Amino acid sequence: MTIVLGANQYGKAETRVVRVTRNGETHDIRDLNVSVALAGDLERVYLDGDNAAALPTDSQKNTVFAFAREHGIASPEEFGLLLARHFVASQEPIRRARVAVEEYAWDRVPVTGHSFVRNGTETRTARITHTAGATHVVSGLKDLVVLNSTGSEFWGYPKDRYTTLAETTDRILATSVTAEWRHEGTDDDWDGSYALVREVLLETFADTHSLSLQQTLAMMGRRVLEKHEGLAEIRFAMPNKHHFLVDLEPFGLDNPNEVFYAADRPYGLIEGTMLRDDLPPAEEAWWTS
Amino acid sequence: MTIVLGANQYGKAETRVVRVTRNGETHDIRDLNVSVALAGDLERVYLDGDNAAALPTDSQKNTVFAFAREHGIASPEEFGLLLARHFVASQEPIRRARVAVEEYAWDRVPVTGHSFVRNGTETRTARITHTAGATHVVSGLKDLVVLNSTGSEFWGYPKDRYTTLAETTDRILATSVTAEWRHEGTDDDWDGSYALVREVLLETFADTHSLSLQQTLAMMGRRVLEKHEGLAEIRFAMPNKHHFLVDLEPFGLDNPNEVFYAADRPYGLIEGTMLRDDLPPAEEAWWTS
Amino acid sequence: MTIVLGANQYGKAETRVVRVTRNGETHDIRDLNVSVALAGDLERVYLDGDNAAALPTDSQKNTVFAFAREHGIASPEEFGLLLARHFVASQEPIRRARVAVEEYAWDRVPVTGHSFVRNGTETRTARITHTAGATHVVSGLKDLVVLNSTGSEFWGYPKDRYTTLAETTDRILATSVTAEWRHEGTDDDWDGSYALVREVLLETFADTHSLSLQQTLAMMGRRVLEKHEGLAEIRFAMPNKHHFLVDLEPFGLDNPNEVFYAADRPYGLIEGTMLRDDLPPAEEAWWTS
Amino acid sequence: MTIVLGANQYGKAETRVVRVTRNGETHDIRDLNVSVALAGDLERVYLDGDNAAALPTDSQKNTVFAFAREHGIASPEEFGLLLARHFVASQEPIRRARVAVEEYAWDRVPVTGHSFVRNGTETRTARITHTAGATHVVSGLKDLVVLNSTGSEFWGYPKDRYTTLAETTDRILATSVTAEWRHEGTDDDWDGSYALVREVLLETFADTHSLSLQQTLAMMGRRVLEKHEGLAEIRFAMPNKHHFLVDLEPFGLDNPNEVFYAADRPYGLIEGTMLRDDLPPAEEAWWTS
Repeated sequence: MTIVLGANQYGKAETRVVRVTRNGETHDIRDLNVSVALAGDLERVYLDGDNAAALPTDSQKNTVFAFAREHGIASPEEFGLLLARHFVASQEPIRRARVAVEEYAWDRVPVTGHSFVRNGTETRTARITHTAGATHVVSGLKDLVVLNSTGSEFWGYPKDRYTTLAETTDRILATSVTAEWRHEGTDDDWDGSYALVREVLLETFADTHSLSLQQTLAMMGRRVLEKHEGLAEIRFAMPNKHHFLVDLEPFGLDNPNEVFYAADRPYGLIEGTMLRDDLPPAEEAWWTS
Repeated sequence: MTIVLGANQYGKAETRVVRVTRNGETHDIRDLNVSVALAGDLERVYLDGDNAAALPTDSQKNTVFAFAREHGIASPEEFGLLLARHFVASQEPIRRARVAVEEYAWDRVPVTGHSFVRNGTETRTARITHTAGATHVVSGLKDLVVLNSTGSEFWGYPKDRYTTLAETTDRILATSVTAEWRHEGTDDDWDGSYALVREVLLETFADTHSLSLQQTLAMMGRRVLEKHEGLAEIRFAMPNKHHFLVDLEPFGLDNPNEVFYAADRPYGLIEGTMLRDDLPPAEEAWWTS
Repeated sequence: MTIVLGANQYGKAETRVVRVTRNGETHDIRDLNVSVALAGDLERVYLDGDNAAALPTDSQKNTVFAFAREHGIASPEEFGLLLARHFVASQEPIRRARVAVEEYAWDRVPVTGHSFVRNGTETRTARITHTAGATHVVSGLKDLVVLNSTGSEFWGYPKDRYTTLAETTDRILATSVTAEWRHEGTDDDWDGSYALVREVLLETFADTHSLSLQQTLAMMGRRVLEKHEGLAEIRFAMPNKHHFLVDLEPFGLDNPNEVFYAADRPYGLIEGTMLRDDLPPAEEAWWTS
Repeated sequence: MTIVLGANQYGKAETRVVRVTRNGETHDIRDLNVSVALAGDLERVYLDGDNAAALPTDSQKNTVFAFAREHGIASPEEFGLLLARHFVASQEPIRRARVAVEEYAWDRVPVTGHSFVRNGTETRTARITHTAGATHVVSGLKDLVVLNSTGSEFWGYPKDRYTTLAETTDRILATSVTAEWRHEGTDDDWDGSYALVREVLLETFADTHSLSLQQTLAMMGRRVLEKHEGLAEIRFAMPNKHHFLVDLEPFGLDNPNEVFYAADRPYGLIEGTMLRDDLPPAEEAWWTS
């Protein structure tokens, strides 16, 4: 047998860059966490300790900061595209660059033009994968925590030897949405499309009478693809954040869906993809990193 | 020498209770994390293994859920007062009860009356300490992250052998505010006073031209006490979340306060108290738990 | 265009089960965190809200507990195999089951036969993917933190416009190893092979004179595959936990590789796979999630 | 009313310093997280924005690194004493310095003299409080997770309206020990006394037949004070990490204390102090920071 090098990549993860744009008294800020991963002809780095092809991760970090000055940060997607293209174009051995960006939102404190308060609701994400032949842009969000206090049922499921769960026609449905949507192209109004998708996700979660979290997930995906024609696919991971009705009978009290215990673990984890069937699927490999 | 029992308390920590109040189609929710700590004549529990004085922490948890049904949750402070008084009144050996509450905020998704999205900006806190003779209420918040992109200076400090920091008249000032304010009495419009203090904290952080984070902290405290006469004292812990200007000169670029590196550790930690001098100080012991 | 359901799975994540086996006065414990994910004919669940195919995640959790009683926990791999086969065999719509297990290690406190102290060094992992046609077992570990205080160089790399890093022939090399190794078959001495791989990883990290973390990674993988013939492949993700030499010159002090600053972010992230070229590769799909 | 400045302090938190000591081929490392907090005549800093008394926290960080070079790190306590004395002696306005140290343990990988694996079992802590008049040293540990799979009972407690807990004569007892012990003096064999206290804590947890976690706590404290005459006091915070026996009856299975569910929240939290009654108590103020 011979032992060989398989899939590999390397880069600088979690460079925390904050960009201030000063328009007189009024400032804008963008607050990013940028991770770069490069792949290509790196066999000699891994197998021979020859670093001639390994641009230091420290240089990648420096590039993030310098690009923030030279090009500004128009959006996580635009900034990721610039970086990914740069590394493939400028480093001969590098065949593929992935850039993953998290963006943290800030609201203005309206007293001055330069004061901000962190908006903790969710984290916006973007992932760019660029090779000489293809460029993919995936936008997303995580930690968008939503709850419906009614309008959720769960019944009609199979009962095996280990089933004790009671069927219900009225429960709390709560989840923390992680979603990623793949753009058909590499041009979009990135901030506008983010705002649109976020709004559709919230509205659909709210106005879907739910027979399962799976059903809610699929409806959220369907509506996003219907509302934004530039998207080919959307993927979700949604934990079922269980809120159990507390049994108050031992204390002589009823509990008409009013008092719940919010559990941490275990939790249901529902994953699913909705996609347009008129478009070619993405290579699985670049979804995962 | 003899070895004796000193300060002690016990209780149930982190009971996660969600209370839904249904007004027809429109629901309200309050989402709390409640911790109870009881002290009193517990020597025999600790020293002899005699549990006759130790109400189980499991019963304390049950009480949190039952009280949420019986009394509702008007506010973290009101709910904490109810619980603290209950344990001291109903358990003969218990002389002091502390109840600490965290509240997580939810915004409405306006599509229905029962849909919510978690507002992650900050966590509201309340701490109640109740004995037969005295009741203290401390309200607060944590993880309120704020940033001024200008309007902050730092200079005029002593330079010792280990000082290399350059003086500056323009830097980013960012912090995560943890604050607790002590009420003179045990009655207040708890939700209203919370909203007021939060607003004053944000505004004062924003409109104070800062010569140090210490100075900003003191001004924030002063303004809160001026605006709300029912408060005796406010305590802060505010990390200086350093945003370092990146040196782009090696890349032939200037950096006119535009590109910053957001550092994790180490960080400055500024703590301070502002208080009214016409009121008796609180016993130190009940501030700490 | 039509919008369709793509890849999907669901299950119960993070069931925390502790199994005590009593041999008279001497007890053994296994402490697991078990996550189940099921896939198959679930379209009607997602698209129609028809739950006839959706065994509740609550039942999956119950199965974990019941199997711990009925079958015991011989190892994370053995327990995962039992569960994965059960769900595919007993639920007609289910075509694929994935079971991911984390195991937390405990050392004996030798005073009694039933006293233990958590050994926090690393977390053992196992992932089972089972379909009617194929069963894959991947064992692994995460959070194995190692450091060499010398014996590491980094030089000979390309310098672009953004490179400022100085070459070095003596630095600290530190990482937190995450590794997963794929077994050729579904039978092994799971505990024995885990101990062997862990030992080879530690030894190879220690005795490899390193020209890059990539090179160290590849050598660790090569040695594992050489020492354990039952393995087809091993994958690594290893952050370069930077320890920067502190510049003490401003204080009139030299620093002959003695005082380091341990940085949090950003960090290099080195990923790579070593595999036997005489065996068929695994489908990419089951490596992920 | 007048609003005045109350208790305050400031400093640099979480400076991560790693010190390598090279004895030929054999290296030793100490890996610390150091936090400094200074108090004194700081009113003008807080109230007037006059920084003449505020040694920058950046200088405090530099001092940590420089002292690691100049003095080495003999132990967390010794290093903390050096730093605390330095700030009070060298900065005229500073009247009190607190230094809090966490130490992370590393085991040798015996292949070389310079290879180490992080021992994750617990974190060692030390806190020094120094003024011109008094110096206090508190040593401690946190996150020492221990479990007895038998030998624990809980019964004989009061039952109120909200009590549903069943009494038991055989349960799992598990906790994560946080302990701090105050030394009478400022000289000790710090590493030796740490090892001794840790051993006594483990042994006493193991060999105490427990009627409550409170009783176990008190016995652990008593034994530590008996075994080390240089200690005046020991304080504990010990969460009751509940392991609930799973009810397997619905599946036709018994559960003779074999299968447990490890719960996260809520948890009991037991706090207590054991102290020698022939020594003066410490001022409460310096216990808390």
